[in-house]
Amino acid sequence: MSAPESSHARSLDRDTVLCVSLAARPSNIGTRFHNYLYNALGLNYVYKAFAPRDIAAAVAGIRGLPIRGAAVSMPYKETVLDLVDVTEPSAAAIASVNTIVNEAGVLHAYNTDYQAVVDLLAVSEFDRAWSVAVAGSGGMAKALVAALREAGFTDVTVVARNAQTGTDLAGRYGFTYRSGLADDARPELLVNATPMGMAGADAEELPFPEAVVDAAKAGFDVVALPPDTPLVRRLRTAGKPVISGDAVIAGQAAAQFALYTGITPSPELIAEASAYSRSAATGC
Amino acid sequence: MSAPESSHARSLDRDTVLCVSLAARPSNIGTRFHNYLYNALGLNYVYKAFAPRDIAAAVAGIRGLPIRGAAVSMPYKETVLDLVDVTEPSAAAIASVNTIVNEAGVLHAYNTDYQAVVDLLAVSEFDRAWSVAVAGSGGMAKALVAALREAGFTDVTVVARNAQTGTDLAGRYGFTYRSGLADDARPELLVNATPMGMAGADAEELPFPEAVVDAAKAGFDVVALPPDTPLVRRLRTAGKPVISGDAVIAGQAAAQFALYTGITPSPELIAEASAYSRSAATGC
Repeated sequence: MSAPESSHARSLDRDTVLCVSLAARPSNIGTRFHNYLYNALGLNYVYKAFAPRDIAAAVAGIRGLPIRGAAVSMPYKETVLDLVDVTEPSAAAIASVNTIVNEAGVLHAYNTDYQAVVDLLAVSEFDRAWSVAVAGSGGMAKALVAALREAGFTDVTVVARNAQTGTDLAGRYGFTYRSGLADDARPELLVNATPMGMAGADAEELPFPEAVVDAAKAGFDVVALPPDTPLVRRLRTAGKPVISGDAVIAGQAAAQFALYTGITPSPELIAEASAYSRSAATGC
Repeated sequence: MSAPESSHARSLDRDTVLCVSLAARPSNIGTRFHNYLYNALGLNYVYKAFAPRDIAAAVAGIRGLPIRGAAVSMPYKETVLDLVDVTEPSAAAIASVNTIVNEAGVLHAYNTDYQAVVDLLAVSEFDRAWSVAVAGSGGMAKALVAALREAGFTDVTVVARNAQTGTDLAGRYGFTYRSGLADDARPELLVNATPMGMAGADAEELPFPEAVVDAAKAGFDVVALPPDTPLVRRLRTAGKPVISGDAVIAGQAAAQFALYTGITPSPELIAEASAYSRSAATGC
């Protein structure tokens, strides 16, 4: 219905640049975000999500067709490291790729999730001297722990049920590992990199004990659907500064968009595209 | 501006099926034809032309991303025979591929140019006993000569400057080769499979001597841009039946469309999409 969208279809031609996403279970968020911005900015680009049948062949296709860029999601973030030509610092930092950019047949790998977290921490009011607890030891936890270290935090505890991945992650940066936090633990910054608070079975879950949350000074939650998780709501209600998952999503997507197109949209336009991409309506 | 096009953009999502074309120098015709029909029929498909950097990698991408179908143009029509899994009869007949269909990871190769010519000859009023002269010995000439044989014509002369390819082509079907026709030659059906009459340097050229054209009973011209070549105009002005290149293009594209989508559009809709695809306007 909107003007930007109808202008998109009119421009689809032999020169249209294709960007894609590669994921086992693609969502519509990236497709809606990027196509919204292409249309709003009048760019002759189109974005399409794929659930690859064969990741090596799919990456060959990016090089061979060619496709300009690819967002990479689970379970391909590590696999594609062996399929690209250049691993950029953001992907090397956490040995994980979420973005491939095709520069004249040379595939460059980036991690804009990591970059977005680094950027958000850089402009945050969080004190680097604060003690930090990070819940989780998966892919997003790797990005957050590495970014905390990059930002200058030194007192970091990784809290995860999985002792193997938790110990590995904490050990990589000289941080501490714990299987859980007691009610009397007092980390000042709480970071959630688990699905706790995400729509579904974990929607009402807090990643830390209530007493720990109430004593904390600030929070950072990567859950974006919805961005107002129980952790985020509880901290904000108490007037504490929080970075929520929608900011990570928007930041990483804006960085990805800039890598594909060379254009950095205004924060207002990013917010508009981000809101559009997460809106429930799928018919428009 | 049209309703079908704006409805296309609205439906682009993770389930959108991608079809592509692979050519060294893509035109906009296929892109416009297929997207017009997708929109008109409300199909969640999108079509995009590519100039591949690496044809083997591009075909790997069709299998791996996956992409539903690919139109194949010069110079890849023979090369891709080694890259697909199943060579269907229409491609095997002339050892040339113009369409790949991805059936659950198994790539099938077809030649809908050949199929369209076979279909047009089958419904034509051309007498199988007529003598036929075919100008050209390239890819389209291969399709036409094979289709003439398939349709039951037996008195066929291949007329081509290139003695090697001309002799090979004629010999393959037990037909005759000539480097040119004299003014007193009297073939009854004239077939043009050269660029003579195509927009550009050859726009005013006849592929046969004027006296030969004026004595012929009917014609078949594969040139589609424009479809009213000097040969077609001269024959039609004299009231003779002619099959022109726009019918081949429309027939092959409709066959391709049916292979990709399972849907055979009405002749009226095909004509509408075909006219749209060849219209000069590129902005709408």
